[in-house]
Amino acid sequence: MEAKLKELKERLIEINNLKSAVGVLFWDQATYMPPGGADARARQMSTLEKLAHEKFIDPAIGKLLEELRPYEKSLSFDSYEAALIRITRREYERAVKISPSFQAELVAHGSKCYDVWSKARSENNFSKVQPYLEKMLDLSVKLANFFPGYEHIADPLIDFNDYGMKTSMIRSLFKELREELVPIVQKITSQKAADDSCLHKSFPEEKQLTFGIDVIKRLGYDFKRGRQDKTHHPFTIDFSIGDVRITTRIKENDLNDALFSTIHEAGHAMYEQGISTDFEGTPLGTGTSSGVHESQSRLWENIVGRSRGFWKFFYPRLQEIFPDQLKSVPLDTFYRAINKVQRSLIRTDSDEVTYNLHVMIRFDLELQLLEGKLSVSDLPEAWRERYKSDLGVKSPDDKDGVMQDVHWYSDHIGGVFQCYTLGNIMCSQFYEAALKAHPEIPSEIEKGKFDTLHNWLKENIYQHGSKYTASELIKRVTGKELTIEPYIRYLKNKYGELYSL
Amino acid sequence: MEAKLKELKERLIEINNLKSAVGVLFWDQATYMPPGGADARARQMSTLEKLAHEKFIDPAIGKLLEELRPYEKSLSFDSYEAALIRITRREYERAVKISPSFQAELVAHGSKCYDVWSKARSENNFSKVQPYLEKMLDLSVKLANFFPGYEHIADPLIDFNDYGMKTSMIRSLFKELREELVPIVQKITSQKAADDSCLHKSFPEEKQLTFGIDVIKRLGYDFKRGRQDKTHHPFTIDFSIGDVRITTRIKENDLNDALFSTIHEAGHAMYEQGISTDFEGTPLGTGTSSGVHESQSRLWENIVGRSRGFWKFFYPRLQEIFPDQLKSVPLDTFYRAINKVQRSLIRTDSDEVTYNLHVMIRFDLELQLLEGKLSVSDLPEAWRERYKSDLGVKSPDDKDGVMQDVHWYSDHIGGVFQCYTLGNIMCSQFYEAALKAHPEIPSEIEKGKFDTLHNWLKENIYQHGSKYTASELIKRVTGKELTIEPYIRYLKNKYGELYSL
Repeated sequence: MEAKLKELKERLIEINNLKSAVGVLFWDQATYMPPGGADARARQMSTLEKLAHEKFIDPAIGKLLEELRPYEKSLSFDSYEAALIRITRREYERAVKISPSFQAELVAHGSKCYDVWSKARSENNFSKVQPYLEKMLDLSVKLANFFPGYEHIADPLIDFNDYGMKTSMIRSLFKELREELVPIVQKITSQKAADDSCLHKSFPEEKQLTFGIDVIKRLGYDFKRGRQDKTHHPFTIDFSIGDVRITTRIKENDLNDALFSTIHEAGHAMYEQGISTDFEGTPLGTGTSSGVHESQSRLWENIVGRSRGFWKFFYPRLQEIFPDQLKSVPLDTFYRAINKVQRSLIRTDSDEVTYNLHVMIRFDLELQLLEGKLSVSDLPEAWRERYKSDLGVKSPDDKDGVMQDVHWYSDHIGGVFQCYTLGNIMCSQFYEAALKAHPEIPSEIEKGKFDTLHNWLKENIYQHGSKYTASELIKRVTGKELTIEPYIRYLKNKYGELYSL
Repeated sequence: MEAKLKELKERLIEINNLKSAVGVLFWDQATYMPPGGADARARQMSTLEKLAHEKFIDPAIGKLLEELRPYEKSLSFDSYEAALIRITRREYERAVKISPSFQAELVAHGSKCYDVWSKARSENNFSKVQPYLEKMLDLSVKLANFFPGYEHIADPLIDFNDYGMKTSMIRSLFKELREELVPIVQKITSQKAADDSCLHKSFPEEKQLTFGIDVIKRLGYDFKRGRQDKTHHPFTIDFSIGDVRITTRIKENDLNDALFSTIHEAGHAMYEQGISTDFEGTPLGTGTSSGVHESQSRLWENIVGRSRGFWKFFYPRLQEIFPDQLKSVPLDTFYRAINKVQRSLIRTDSDEVTYNLHVMIRFDLELQLLEGKLSVSDLPEAWRERYKSDLGVKSPDDKDGVMQDVHWYSDHIGGVFQCYTLGNIMCSQFYEAALKAHPEIPSEIEKGKFDTLHNWLKENIYQHGSKYTASELIKRVTGKELTIEPYIRYLKNKYGELYSL
């Protein structure tokens, strides 16, 4: 059995080598590649992806997994070997269900649709991309139907990113959350808006970079096993547990943007850096779900990075770097500015209170599209209506309306947005558990010490990689099922103090 | 037949995609990769190399090449299709002769031997690496013996880098050249050495970079299809004809180093950037031999970049960038400094006159090792003797003696050094042909205009990629076989003026 497990692992590592190479090619494309490299890069990535997929759906892997079944049963659920067989089988069984020709069609259409979307968006012309989005919806329905027996058609699509989460469960969580959020947003936005002009002075790029790097080093991001580079749309990517990179972009007149996106990406990256090296090169060696991943970036970005205690330590340093801009701005003004809540049009620019309302609009519209209750041609109007009713804002155009996010136009429709709100919910639940174990964390944060929190996260979440599903992990770490209560407590507590709710 | 050619091309492009990906992984490793990425990077590159090799030696490629034989014969030698079939067959027939297990052993030993050499070199301890070099010699002999029927055992090894050049031919060229060089070196070094102190002031890194970039842009290096990054040992690498990158390193107290290595690498890169895009992704889409490649880097670095005319244009610009360092240094002093000739220990730091003597020492010792006339244990002493007799300098240690160059310790022994001198010889022969067609080139260079020369090189050399062998190309372009005459004329003319020979 050991020989079979060894063979399985060798095959998985070879596949991982190909996938990691795709990662390097993607990273290079997004950071340093000259424009002339684009055409060849597309075919290079496509060859590697195709080979990785072919090698993963090789029946030899299915046979090994079958032969290893009795061995797996003889092991404890928590053992590395059992987890490796279990998670590989889950991924394998999913991968072989999708026909390779369909997979190729979906990838090709995603690439085409993305190109058309880029142009249509810049021209504010939804009708240009509409037929492509219609085909994308058609393909998304077909994709879901490779997995018959679902409770809701979105469930198989949700499984790709948040394995085991069902539409019904997310719907009920989101309903509960909306009922709590709407009155909070109403109360806050009926008050005078926070003054965030202190964030919109001129902040030289190099200094913003230096400060951001100092912050994430202190949080525990390891630059010996990572690096930061500039790009258009920040992302985190890993080529191994020893090489987890983040990217950022800097806006001279917006201190918010680079700073919090750097902390956010470092949160994703510390998760990947903290995975047990035993899992290297296997399906266990990556974060367990998009929701859990987002919980780790949001925990550092929002719960830690937007807390008053954090800035008690960092604000004097920030003032030292930007004396002209911030010397006369009190900590309280700065703290209110970075936590300004407002009804807005753009998801990625929104604050931590309204953010979830943006996500719910997308989640609901996705379900309606997949259920056949909404047509793509009616989508722009449905989008506008929901923004009016849910956020009280009017989309002036489709560019910043229905064409705002790339996801539907490049991946597929369904299961791609829920992770953001799941992450917000989870991170409060995890953080409460951390505080229960280490009540000293908040006072340490005020002193710029983050290792108790970092180590707790590493011990309880990071190290396990994909060994446990999101639900299993939440139960293990917090003793409870996923619940919105800690998140609501967190929001009421923080924003209650800021806006006397 | 067209379908078969199409299939062959598709297979070749897939292999090229894998090899280009290896290139990106190597480039990243040499420029930006954090230390923690090293272990995984080795296995990633090895997987891709293995797959590329397996796909190339696939008997299906041999079958296609056989089936295409009559078609090839029906085509003109100069046609793209004939060249593609011809050069692919040459590479295929070579690749299938080496057993895959031997190939793997050689790569693994190269990697191990490189590691030991790095340590042994820093400790100046040849005996540490000696057994590894002995095994390398053994493997090199075995490698050559996969190609029985050679005239000299080094011939098959020379073929890897300089296809078609034979030991006998190189020996006779080098003998002729040595007879001419030795008296020139004697005459020059009997005179007062040039004062190059003006190159060893403090030249801030950023300004050196800026100047170098300005220079190579004017020469014709296309930054839309390339970029420059910093590394330890400068190299040029291409991932496609649209993405050919160069690397450099800067020494604050040596203006020579970055400047001329930048021009040198840009010479390699312009060759690759100038290849016909029809050849993209096939064995035709790269420079035809190491010697020809080196001729293109040396032509720009030495014939152009170290000429008086070139600096008539650029020196005032350089003085503007470094006024404190160069304002009071006359052009003539600067010109003599960058062309200082001296007997020295280190090949890579040597001037264009003595450089070839360094190469010949290595070439001769390689042959003696392969012929069994010299043992690895006697190599350090043989090295010292040759440096004393040929260059009149005494190696103080093995670190900068026999352990100076990485080639024998990482690749194999034999066929790896001749290209440097072949490049020097060829570039003068090519340049004379260019001057014959365009006598205005030198006066254009004085005005900072390089497009006549660049276009001539593109038309006559670059665009053809690997379509013609080095010998075929030289004959086509210059109407003659390879000859040292133009090179000797060039040296006597240039150094005659500098040193009144």
